[in-house]
Amino acid sequence: MYKLNSILENRTINQLISDFKRSPNQLNKPHESDAEILKLNNTLLAVTTDSISEEISQGLYDDPYLVGWMIVTVNMSDLAAVGATPLGILISEIIPKHFKEEKNKELQKGISDACNTYNTFVLGGDTNEGDCLVLTGTAIGIINQDKSISRIGCKPNDIVYTSGRLGSGNAYAISKLISQTNSFSNYKPLAQLKYANVNMQYASCCMDTSDGLITTLDQLMRLNNYGFELDENLENAIDIRAFEYSKNLNIPPWLLFAGQHGEFELIFTIPNNTKDLFLKEAFQNSLNPIELGKVIHQKEIKIPLYDELISMNTTFIRNLPIETNSDVNHYLKMLLEYDYQIKNEPCLKFTSP
Amino acid sequence: MYKLNSILENRTINQLISDFKRSPNQLNKPHESDAEILKLNNTLLAVTTDSISEEISQGLYDDPYLVGWMIVTVNMSDLAAVGATPLGILISEIIPKHFKEEKNKELQKGISDACNTYNTFVLGGDTNEGDCLVLTGTAIGIINQDKSISRIGCKPNDIVYTSGRLGSGNAYAISKLISQTNSFSNYKPLAQLKYANVNMQYASCCMDTSDGLITTLDQLMRLNNYGFELDENLENAIDIRAFEYSKNLNIPPWLLFAGQHGEFELIFTIPNNTKDLFLKEAFQNSLNPIELGKVIHQKEIKIPLYDELISMNTTFIRNLPIETNSDVNHYLKMLLEYDYQIKNEPCLKFTSP
Repeated sequence: MYKLNSILENRTINQLISDFKRSPNQLNKPHESDAEILKLNNTLLAVTTDSISEEISQGLYDDPYLVGWMIVTVNMSDLAAVGATPLGILISEIIPKHFKEEKNKELQKGISDACNTYNTFVLGGDTNEGDCLVLTGTAIGIINQDKSISRIGCKPNDIVYTSGRLGSGNAYAISKLISQTNSFSNYKPLAQLKYANVNMQYASCCMDTSDGLITTLDQLMRLNNYGFELDENLENAIDIRAFEYSKNLNIPPWLLFAGQHGEFELIFTIPNNTKDLFLKEAFQNSLNPIELGKVIHQKEIKIPLYDELISMNTTFIRNLPIETNSDVNHYLKMLLEYDYQIKNEPCLKFTSP
Repeated sequence: MYKLNSILENRTINQLISDFKRSPNQLNKPHESDAEILKLNNTLLAVTTDSISEEISQGLYDDPYLVGWMIVTVNMSDLAAVGATPLGILISEIIPKHFKEEKNKELQKGISDACNTYNTFVLGGDTNEGDCLVLTGTAIGIINQDKSISRIGCKPNDIVYTSGRLGSGNAYAISKLISQTNSFSNYKPLAQLKYANVNMQYASCCMDTSDGLITTLDQLMRLNNYGFELDENLENAIDIRAFEYSKNLNIPPWLLFAGQHGEFELIFTIPNNTKDLFLKEAFQNSLNPIELGKVIHQKEIKIPLYDELISMNTTFIRNLPIETNSDVNHYLKMLLEYDYQIKNEPCLKFTSP
């Protein structure tokens, strides 16, 4: 566990749960799965809970419709990663006294639109008054097989895919938290539930990009004890508007992978010998996965940058939000300094502890 | 629905969910059940979500251990009411930056102790930083029968029981929110999961007293279109220390039933012709239900007070927290005025709209 624990967030979780007993019905261990997997007679149940709180208090989500949309999406995305079909979601809403009725309607419309999009349902909930707007969703899904897709299982030479282009989450975060002038409004991510069936047949591991690409790859590396090497044509995997946006702001595009506000795509691996079958079936299902790279033996995240293949210091990148005490300007400054280092001293090798 | 909607809280919920579609797998309608009931192959799944937020911001729960204990208990209590056996609970914790590590440990210990008490497990969760401490639990249980116990189904002459003595929740609330001098520290409610099997066989309806006895009876009245008449020996159903506490403060003991901070007992009804069988089986299972009264045709809540059988204005009582804008002193003053009315003008008939 020491490698997971190099990441402050993992350490916090491990401390929190250290005295909790595990259920004998639960198939996954902590960190191993985007959703919790429970054995129930001949069915597997997938359950997951996620709150939206910091995003609101930081000003990242200031549109009530988006808050409603996201509380469904973030939870459905966890179900998508494990290959589950949603049964529905329970939502607890803590609503400030001064929250306007019009805003509340927008919030509920975001929830309702997202549920309709995912063909799922609000099963129940709870409402409370509070000082701050906080939403907590708990999604429940079923898996009609004897195993789910977990974060563990990839092998060297497996191909790494993303379900879609990446970077819109971080472009949106830059626009809301840092840039005063330049807005990026194209943020309405879609949980990739449509991948469940194909991934269930072919994927050797899967995790969503709720915390951005680098965090996802780093966590998969720590759990699988293998690394990842990304392809040179990485621009194919960047959201086109996010890419333009970063160029306009003079921010290196790879920072769109490093930030921790994700776009809720799925990162998954496919064994090389079933790649063709997977792609055929994916296209038949109107899915357009993008090849990102491959699994490697070395426990490193290698990204082609500035004509070099750089082994990224992903521990540094992942711990930076906490180390900079959520000061986004300081956080960006540190990332830009790190970019300067790899640009000018690429032979410096950073290894993840 | 107009009768449910006389209660402001019901109206708020109905407005909130008005655009949400219902799941075809969900067996209960809104308000009809303490937990949501989902059909899943040959099993019924019971799911429920509850947050603790107002209780913390109001100062009602200032002990982190109690907060941890309660987030498990309030959700387990909903499972108990529908007759489910818990599979576990997911807990989202929003923890303020300044929250001390020692307090956090107490919080987790409360969660862990409660789970051990109920022989259940934390299945997963989410942690966020926030301005206020907020906990949200989502409990999942199974019912190995083709129907659950709902809030609907009682008939006139059914006997009303409580699983245990009532009033400690409101005595505790008075002590924390109103009395400056006189403390009431015996508040650590227990979800009545042990009633699941017996109630599943005998109970015609059930609801927990999370919001106090009068709220529970009033909601059951609105859902069943029958009323309740309580017995004269009502003192048998009051928590002894809560009773002493109210006498010391010169607060009429029936206010321990009227306040909306409950004690998480179960209120349930048993058809008169199976009463003896029920009681026999209950005692065999070391359960000690207390008879409260009976179901009546008239849609009234009749309580023996001041040598009269008073038809209580439960609409007034239930809406009072919102009408008094959560001002607890004003709330108590209004309740005491109402008490004065029924004591001195008992022939005034209050009917619930």
